[in-house]
Amino acid sequence: MAKLYVIKIGGNIVDDEGKLSSFLKSFAAIKEKKILVHGGGKLATKLAEQLGITQQMIEGRRITDAETLKVVTMVYAGLINKNIVAQLQANGCNAMGLTGADGNSVLAHKRIVKDLDYGYAGDIDGVNAQFLHALLQQALTLVCAPITHDGKGQLLNTNADTIAQEMAKALSSLYNVQLVYSFEKAGVLLNAEDDDSVIPVIDKTKYKELKEKGLVFAGMIPKLDNAFTALEYGVNKVIIGKADDLSSLIVGQSGTSIIHE
Amino acid sequence: MAKLYVIKIGGNIVDDEGKLSSFLKSFAAIKEKKILVHGGGKLATKLAEQLGITQQMIEGRRITDAETLKVVTMVYAGLINKNIVAQLQANGCNAMGLTGADGNSVLAHKRIVKDLDYGYAGDIDGVNAQFLHALLQQALTLVCAPITHDGKGQLLNTNADTIAQEMAKALSSLYNVQLVYSFEKAGVLLNAEDDDSVIPVIDKTKYKELKEKGLVFAGMIPKLDNAFTALEYGVNKVIIGKADDLSSLIVGQSGTSIIHE
Repeated sequence: MAKLYVIKIGGNIVDDEGKLSSFLKSFAAIKEKKILVHGGGKLATKLAEQLGITQQMIEGRRITDAETLKVVTMVYAGLINKNIVAQLQANGCNAMGLTGADGNSVLAHKRIVKDLDYGYAGDIDGVNAQFLHALLQQALTLVCAPITHDGKGQLLNTNADTIAQEMAKALSSLYNVQLVYSFEKAGVLLNAEDDDSVIPVIDKTKYKELKEKGLVFAGMIPKLDNAFTALEYGVNKVIIGKADDLSSLIVGQSGTSIIHE
Repeated sequence: MAKLYVIKIGGNIVDDEGKLSSFLKSFAAIKEKKILVHGGGKLATKLAEQLGITQQMIEGRRITDAETLKVVTMVYAGLINKNIVAQLQANGCNAMGLTGADGNSVLAHKRIVKDLDYGYAGDIDGVNAQFLHALLQQALTLVCAPITHDGKGQLLNTNADTIAQEMAKALSSLYNVQLVYSFEKAGVLLNAEDDDSVIPVIDKTKYKELKEKGLVFAGMIPKLDNAFTALEYGVNKVIIGKADDLSSLIVGQSGTSIIHE
């Protein structure tokens, strides 16, 4: 099977013009097939503030009311997505931008209200792997914004980490998929303050051991749980590390590789 | 050759939620291959105002400074494009949104400054017909926002009428192309105030006659000149008429058809 990289970049890279530009150069240089999933960053919050739309954040999650949905659609699917696509084109990479509505690539439903109403937040029902595959076969590089739809005309704000994970899982029957989470940290760290304390490889046994010894930080546990779920669904490897180090990251020479036993 | 409709909708349709929704229902019902090119409407101007970005309009054309480019990218490629795509999906039409940067579909250059600096306005150099053809072959309906790029990383604000015309011309070697301009008027009118005065068919002889008699309004002349240019480049027919009448418009039962001799 051909190799496919599904690479997620965090909002803090998107927010930093210089970092983004240098990341996109490295990304464009990857010869294998690739999908980039980008987060939103602070631009949406800034625009909402300028427009006087109060942003409600609960446990780090944005509550997406109707006005906020307009803002994130404009910023994620418009400004950020199209600037990334144009920059990749300038770097010789034939990129195409997508939301989940485009080609019905990611179908979701509005999050069911339990204790909390997240508004127009989308939970993913399915990824249209055949459609993404057809585009990848045309030598296109896909750039995915964290916006999905419900198939009934409603756009939905959707977590970029989850989109990356679901795409990686859905495409793993067609490709040898490596899922890469690139952000500002060097990987999974033994000491959150020390970028030199990266754990290079984690398998299930190692993960159990780290958890038992209390060496995994609370914030990292959902990310690692998700990574192991992705492996169970056929993803070949999950890599977590620094966006600045993309070229060494994708070959496993930096960051943390989460692998099968 | 298979039939292809390239249909442009004007900003006033985009601005009116009810009209847009009913237009998209009719559009989705078209069985042949189709491309929708949408204008921007007043939403961008409104957003710019809210953000305190002064809009300079000269002879009905927007001067696109750097801040205005951000606004139009957000509104055209984000908000409007993605809402149209989601609505078409809800109507059973597998739509995909595009700017000229996506798949390098429309390459342009920043308009050369002569008397006036239009800022980040793009004049089209070429349409990637093979790329659009490959997408159309996948049974996708394309939804094009009036944003292009220069291949060097710069997005550019580009006239939607021109994009529709250039796409129609470029695809005319592969399809039997009908170019449809749908707007608020019933067609080319003998009397601008009277929607019943539509001229049903105009060929070059008729056009010459109408111009000689002074029966064509000044504002219509560039549109008609463009239509005849499109025909010269292989487009089969150009239809101008009311967006509300889309289903009768595309079969030539309403509006004005501009045809070869």
